[in-house]
Amino acid sequence: MKSAEIITIGDEILIGQVINTNAAWIGEQLSCIGVSVIQHTTIPDEHRAIIKALQTASDNADLIIITGGLGPTKDDITKTALCEFFQKKLVLNDEVAKHVEKIFSRYGTQLLSVNKKQAEVPEGCRVLKNNHGTAPGMLFEENNKVYISLPGVPYEMKGIMEEEALPLISEKFNLETIVHRTILTQGIGESFLAEKIKGWANGLEKESIGLAYLPSPGLVRLRLTAKGLDRPNLEKKVSVAVDALRPLLPKHIFGEGNTTMAEVLGKLLREKGLSLSVAESCTGGNIAQKLTSIPGSSDYFKGGVVSYSNEIKVGLLGVDAALIEKRGAVSEAVAIEMAKGARDHLKSDLAISTTGVAGPTGGTEEKPVGTVWIGLATTKGIWAKKFQLGDNRERNIEVTALTALNLLRLELVNNNL
Amino acid sequence: MKSAEIITIGDEILIGQVINTNAAWIGEQLSCIGVSVIQHTTIPDEHRAIIKALQTASDNADLIIITGGLGPTKDDITKTALCEFFQKKLVLNDEVAKHVEKIFSRYGTQLLSVNKKQAEVPEGCRVLKNNHGTAPGMLFEENNKVYISLPGVPYEMKGIMEEEALPLISEKFNLETIVHRTILTQGIGESFLAEKIKGWANGLEKESIGLAYLPSPGLVRLRLTAKGLDRPNLEKKVSVAVDALRPLLPKHIFGEGNTTMAEVLGKLLREKGLSLSVAESCTGGNIAQKLTSIPGSSDYFKGGVVSYSNEIKVGLLGVDAALIEKRGAVSEAVAIEMAKGARDHLKSDLAISTTGVAGPTGGTEEKPVGTVWIGLATTKGIWAKKFQLGDNRERNIEVTALTALNLLRLELVNNNL
Repeated sequence: MKSAEIITIGDEILIGQVINTNAAWIGEQLSCIGVSVIQHTTIPDEHRAIIKALQTASDNADLIIITGGLGPTKDDITKTALCEFFQKKLVLNDEVAKHVEKIFSRYGTQLLSVNKKQAEVPEGCRVLKNNHGTAPGMLFEENNKVYISLPGVPYEMKGIMEEEALPLISEKFNLETIVHRTILTQGIGESFLAEKIKGWANGLEKESIGLAYLPSPGLVRLRLTAKGLDRPNLEKKVSVAVDALRPLLPKHIFGEGNTTMAEVLGKLLREKGLSLSVAESCTGGNIAQKLTSIPGSSDYFKGGVVSYSNEIKVGLLGVDAALIEKRGAVSEAVAIEMAKGARDHLKSDLAISTTGVAGPTGGTEEKPVGTVWIGLATTKGIWAKKFQLGDNRERNIEVTALTALNLLRLELVNNNL
Repeated sequence: MKSAEIITIGDEILIGQVINTNAAWIGEQLSCIGVSVIQHTTIPDEHRAIIKALQTASDNADLIIITGGLGPTKDDITKTALCEFFQKKLVLNDEVAKHVEKIFSRYGTQLLSVNKKQAEVPEGCRVLKNNHGTAPGMLFEENNKVYISLPGVPYEMKGIMEEEALPLISEKFNLETIVHRTILTQGIGESFLAEKIKGWANGLEKESIGLAYLPSPGLVRLRLTAKGLDRPNLEKKVSVAVDALRPLLPKHIFGEGNTTMAEVLGKLLREKGLSLSVAESCTGGNIAQKLTSIPGSSDYFKGGVVSYSNEIKVGLLGVDAALIEKRGAVSEAVAIEMAKGARDHLKSDLAISTTGVAGPTGGTEEKPVGTVWIGLATTKGIWAKKFQLGDNRERNIEVTALTALNLLRLELVNNNL
């Protein structure tokens, strides 16, 4: 099995100002294509440190991925270090030069000499195109080892990895076949999930299928992994396992792979030709933001009201002020009126509402922090459901948003809307 | 200056299942007490890898902190590796044994033999008490180097670091002081920023102040670092440099350290007793979400309308339908009407509006992807400003949201609202 070391360059990571999410992401991607990640190393923005890390890594691993230090400013020194390490000179790459010029002309801004320098790469390297920025990725081969240098900006790094580096790594190494499937669940915690699928999980072991639980707020991803030589057979084995899992979690499984709840729901809405609006109190725009993060969402998402004040609940959503006074803003009745108001005033087929105490303050004995009502107005009726979450504001907002979207998804799937 | 390497043990980190927040936290703590962190290394749960990492680290650093691999399960093997590295035997530590027993009796559960093993430590090490769990920390000294082994569970690790390890490190090393300041800028790209402050940055070099650029979508953080013995002098030196920087970037610097734009703006609104609402088209709820992520934001944020459809722009914000027809939804006139509509209909003192083509599709020759109008309605007038961004939807939304918040911040600061 081929091994990899990931080198991250950056003082900001060493001193804890930035958390090293790049190494985690690259580690995950490499594992998925069957490369064994044996070390992450983070080093300072220093020439000597980069050279030393490259030397050490080349003694241990078959693949060395190095991120950071490719920007136009003078604290970015990876290219000079790569030149010394491979004993090459910097040369201007015409293709990269054109790409950089194109990006600057699009913004209508002038090219600075520091930007021109971004088109220089060590002689003989293979340029990996950066479709999301100016600094190119670079691939070097020496003594059967592959070295890949990438920018540290996460979305640029990810773009080059997905579009250029990962296919090349698969091609250059003769990798064992690994089949992964990741099943996405919502609304059930990791330990309850594990208890519920215990028997099924034991069956996986007999089939030599690996299982990993990957929790994040509101979601648990289940990753199934099978390794071997015969891809069709591995795929079939995993597929049988996934089919056996579905009936165990009918309310919780909403998708697979890298999709999101908003994407799954959006697809359903588009298929059914239904439009959606939202009335958000405790989620403060998070649901609208999730829905609109999907390109083309304007086809089914009409918009929303963030009714952070009661005045807006009354004025824009038509909630009865006396009802708020009587039941409180965080109540079943108000959640229902909000959903109804969004559906009527924003003229959509369906509407979601949220009202709750996100925290950290604002709780009472009757309605402690984490009390949340989610309302749904559909073509078949209006109702609201209560949830009792924890005391972390950020987590409560995220969990409420995902739960609301999943509730609507279940209505669409099960209630034949 | 004393140097440190942080070694993290854990397969789950290598494959990206867990992000290495422990290394970031330890890095930050060590920097704060004046230890220079020169490397983070993450290795698998393997005996040989641990030995090798300890050897390499002891060649480079004065302080080696190793986390993970101290639990009672069989994949936890750090203690055996430490015994081999220091050529010591495991011996039962009475104090730790009593501590473990006490914890188990508190929960009323029976002590398993694997738990008893937690009271064994390599002979001659100094035990660092774990007030939050069963696995003790351990400190070793050899050849003027200090080695500290800590559990990987974050709250146990942090407890031992704060209560035991950090004071001992300060005491054992005669530490040089490090002073960091991080200045947050918005609305200027890394290379333009570098060009604009070139003279100032050269001056820093003469003062032996380090400078790093830390870019993320819409923001660039500037980190200044000074090292030496005299803390007040270093702080003064950095403070003078920051004061000299401010007039160079009057529109861009919005804060320092770990604050956010929404927090800075929220503080200003609270101070001035002004309320805010938003009318979001292309940002789709992102601005509302940023504002409501701050606890207590309901004091100044009244809410918003996500007007993804023109119908909502007309119906809820009172934008003239004929104006949309004539000028298009992405236009100065509509941005102004949206801001005015939000201020009037949501009854706030101030309002922000956004309308644009976030992409990846929907662009025209006249209004390509990335065309964005941001509108502001204040107590002194209403206006809108155009921005030409790139073709990445996620980035365009984030940059627009941050730019809009910064525009309002500048109005509040400069226009005496």
